[in-house]
Amino acid sequence: MERNRTESGNLNFGVKKGGRMNAKSHIPLMASLLKAKGVKHVVIAPGSRNAPLIQSFFKEFGDKCLSIVDERSAGYFALGIALKSQTPVVVITTSGTAALNLAPAIAEAFYQGVPLITITADRPAEWIGQQDNQVIHQQNIFGNNCKASFELPVECTCPEDLWLSNRIVNEAYNKTIAGKSGPVHINVPLREPLYDELPVSTEHSIIETIAPAAIEINEELVTTWKKAKRILIVCGQQSRDQNLNVVLNQFTKDSRVVVLSESTGNVRGENILHNPDLLFQHSEKELINLKPELVVYYGGQVVSKRIKTYLRTVLCEFWYVSPGGLYVDTFKRLSKVIQADVAGFFTSLYKKVESVNGSDYSQRWQLLYAKALEAIGFQTKNVEFSDLWVTKQIANKLQPEAILFAGNSSMIRYLQFFQNNSLEVFANRGTSGIDGCVSTAAGIAKVTDKKVFAVVGDLSFVYDSNGLWNKSLSANLKIIVVNNKGGGIFSMIPGPAQQMGFEEFFQAHHPVSIKKITEAFNLDYTFCSDAESFEKSFLAFSASKKAAVLEIETLSDINTRVFTNFVKNLKNEYK
Amino acid sequence: MERNRTESGNLNFGVKKGGRMNAKSHIPLMASLLKAKGVKHVVIAPGSRNAPLIQSFFKEFGDKCLSIVDERSAGYFALGIALKSQTPVVVITTSGTAALNLAPAIAEAFYQGVPLITITADRPAEWIGQQDNQVIHQQNIFGNNCKASFELPVECTCPEDLWLSNRIVNEAYNKTIAGKSGPVHINVPLREPLYDELPVSTEHSIIETIAPAAIEINEELVTTWKKAKRILIVCGQQSRDQNLNVVLNQFTKDSRVVVLSESTGNVRGENILHNPDLLFQHSEKELINLKPELVVYYGGQVVSKRIKTYLRTVLCEFWYVSPGGLYVDTFKRLSKVIQADVAGFFTSLYKKVESVNGSDYSQRWQLLYAKALEAIGFQTKNVEFSDLWVTKQIANKLQPEAILFAGNSSMIRYLQFFQNNSLEVFANRGTSGIDGCVSTAAGIAKVTDKKVFAVVGDLSFVYDSNGLWNKSLSANLKIIVVNNKGGGIFSMIPGPAQQMGFEEFFQAHHPVSIKKITEAFNLDYTFCSDAESFEKSFLAFSASKKAAVLEIETLSDINTRVFTNFVKNLKNEYK
Repeated sequence: MERNRTESGNLNFGVKKGGRMNAKSHIPLMASLLKAKGVKHVVIAPGSRNAPLIQSFFKEFGDKCLSIVDERSAGYFALGIALKSQTPVVVITTSGTAALNLAPAIAEAFYQGVPLITITADRPAEWIGQQDNQVIHQQNIFGNNCKASFELPVECTCPEDLWLSNRIVNEAYNKTIAGKSGPVHINVPLREPLYDELPVSTEHSIIETIAPAAIEINEELVTTWKKAKRILIVCGQQSRDQNLNVVLNQFTKDSRVVVLSESTGNVRGENILHNPDLLFQHSEKELINLKPELVVYYGGQVVSKRIKTYLRTVLCEFWYVSPGGLYVDTFKRLSKVIQADVAGFFTSLYKKVESVNGSDYSQRWQLLYAKALEAIGFQTKNVEFSDLWVTKQIANKLQPEAILFAGNSSMIRYLQFFQNNSLEVFANRGTSGIDGCVSTAAGIAKVTDKKVFAVVGDLSFVYDSNGLWNKSLSANLKIIVVNNKGGGIFSMIPGPAQQMGFEEFFQAHHPVSIKKITEAFNLDYTFCSDAESFEKSFLAFSASKKAAVLEIETLSDINTRVFTNFVKNLKNEYK
Repeated sequence: MERNRTESGNLNFGVKKGGRMNAKSHIPLMASLLKAKGVKHVVIAPGSRNAPLIQSFFKEFGDKCLSIVDERSAGYFALGIALKSQTPVVVITTSGTAALNLAPAIAEAFYQGVPLITITADRPAEWIGQQDNQVIHQQNIFGNNCKASFELPVECTCPEDLWLSNRIVNEAYNKTIAGKSGPVHINVPLREPLYDELPVSTEHSIIETIAPAAIEINEELVTTWKKAKRILIVCGQQSRDQNLNVVLNQFTKDSRVVVLSESTGNVRGENILHNPDLLFQHSEKELINLKPELVVYYGGQVVSKRIKTYLRTVLCEFWYVSPGGLYVDTFKRLSKVIQADVAGFFTSLYKKVESVNGSDYSQRWQLLYAKALEAIGFQTKNVEFSDLWVTKQIANKLQPEAILFAGNSSMIRYLQFFQNNSLEVFANRGTSGIDGCVSTAAGIAKVTDKKVFAVVGDLSFVYDSNGLWNKSLSANLKIIVVNNKGGGIFSMIPGPAQQMGFEEFFQAHHPVSIKKITEAFNLDYTFCSDAESFEKSFLAFSASKKAAVLEIETLSDINTRVFTNFVKNLKNEYK
């Protein structure tokens, strides 16, 4: 890359004959550098202030640029692409509230650990606060819910500006994937003219962050591991990771080791335990006998409340493996934060220790797990048409090659009971918002040929209906809207039902036609409101030649009754 | 109020018999205090973490609590209510991305100067970053686009906590209306239990900020004013203000004084000039002869680009009257910032000076204005069906008692040509975003019996279609969607049309049915796509018994041609 540097270390790009620099040389430089560093997709929200960005990124990325009008959706759509492709995605907006509309997706990316590079056009400093159009304070707008914030110089007036821009873009890209991945923000003040032709940049200089090649495990950890008689590995939310999957399955051959992954953990294998919500329905007595001596936790959020309640009662050694060295103490038992790449850590550990035979620890958990699966099978066998029935059918219907996107609030909790372990599962569990689910699923669908089934409640669907306002919506996006008329979650928890007079502020039901919204955006639509027609509706929906919505209407009274009985019976089952 | 204080100055509310305090006493205290201080409306987005807030505010405000699911809309809806009612409005959300979705409305409120009190439920500090549900860093999330940020104590464990809470809520309320009004943020960490019954508070202690009773004008200003031969008062965006309107009309009797108010300035009267976009079409020669010696500017944004361009060429004394003492230099000519209430300043000034007769300055402007009105009448008389035609008809159709909400981007620019001076006019010109227009108009309609006509482009409408997701939508809300298939603004400015290959990132047209969206939310719908049916469609739409949408379809090729010719002919007219 040295060819691009002058003797003084500066970059030469954009210097016109006669020595004058193009004032916006740093914009095409940013586009070409991000492409060289590995960005493959660019999501662009339209605007005018961002015209130089649009021009330069379009020249570099062509039809890998996707246009989304609603910036809130654009952010989540980019998040979905980044989640599935596991590469940083660029999202570009114009100035003002356009940039602020990205905030929810940025926060989700931050807590879920998804690499996003947000580039927001801005007015130059002299116009901030001067009552001109679409001007707000944009520096650092994503605050503490973003990994890092940068600002490019307003113009390139000398090679130093280009040198600075090149370094900032390198640092921003590197930070988005360093440690726990996450979003970064590059604010780009731009002076007029905005529509002049810009040069295409071929010159940039790559700066890399080099992480240690291998992890040497601390001996203290090895000793603790070897001594432990009962070890529980808890897999938090994470996208599929082949290396990690392999090594965790190897660990399950150790009779002392239990690996527990929710569907969102995406760890799969013969001896991996799933469904903690079911497992921890077992009687306290039984569970206390199984308490681990060492818990190793990694990844993002765990959905199950029961596993949290259980582990908070267990006194033991507790490790959290975190590439970013984060202090995450979900179970209130943290004793060591292990700053390391997760797959790297387990692989190195595996090499240092040996599988122990002869313990019945793993076996006893497996037994409980089998009982739990039997119990749920029995308890949901003749259940009437309801959210519980519907989610069971969906989980069973999905083919192994499908992808499931679980909506937040009640949907993911229902789906947790019926884990289809062949599926790749996504969910916005960084912040667990009901916003952005449709857009995120659309982003995932954009970068896979597999069918992506998004299962969301009616509130989530309407909240993010602009996720459908997307010309490049792909045909493999299949959205199931379980329409329980808002607030399905509140039939699962006791508090709100007892609050007289203001239920509407929890249930939040505002009548709206899912069908008409779907058709407004020109997707296929199918409806189902009973068990008899489910099979046929699902088939038609699933086979649809374009992006499609299946609305399944359930009744909240029945949902509440079915769920209450189900929980009660399950408890009795375990007695 | 002393009755509520103990000898040590603390508040006693919530102390149970035996001396133990209710840990959430500060929540009902906040609700009762805000009611006592003047809050009349509360917008609530549903949730669970915010249950104690919902409970306490519902008990105080009853049916003045309005439920909106999408927090982005909730924010703008609250903004609309505050704009029209001119009182601070409370908006409550749960934790996580719910709070972030308010950010666009907060920014608009900040720059437009609208009093909003945002109350966001939060997890307690011990759970931040611990991968639990709906937790983000919420302190100061609105950053520099919000007047002030506060955080209540997580629990009331002693009277000091209540004393602190009482003071914070007082300060937050007072700040929202001090100087230039604007949004404040109170973050409220809450520990479980969330659904316990809370006491109703009758005890709180009001703290007021007392501003000076009258403004004594600096003699230097009086002298400058008296000496000036040509004075131009430029009214920036502001809601109707009766006192200000009276005194500005008095000033127009001074033959040296010209008062210029765009429709969004809401200053009306016989001698007030409007339509700066038309006025400043006059030839440079004519305008240069009219250059003022003293310009007095106040209020928010000025839409017209022409007035900006003109005033930036004028060397003169330039005052900006700002209750907040802000340095706003829209015209690049600022010489004095006068920190004072605007109506108060002009009233005091008027008392100190005398009207001067005999100057022809005002008269010459009036003449130009009359010519401009004649020119536009002539130039739009036979114009074909297009955005220009449509906006002219709308402006003429609206009855004096109607309210106009002008959407951003192209709509407000078209409407500027045809100012109906009897109307009260609102527009989100704080940040000029296309987001939030529908929701803001809905908020305005909620607190008036007048018909509120919102004129928005198709992008604005779809962007904020969740503004219709509102059970309490009032029947006087009448939305006109001028469907020019996205990007009407780009047929008004030359840059984008010349950018080959990536027009879609400016025009941003994604096909969507306005009709189906409207019907999905159960509003009345009327359609019109030619001049012949306009009258009938408008009548049906306007007479609708519930909230209604009139979609008017125009063709972008014709829009561009009509607008280009119009501008050209107007220029010739002035030659």
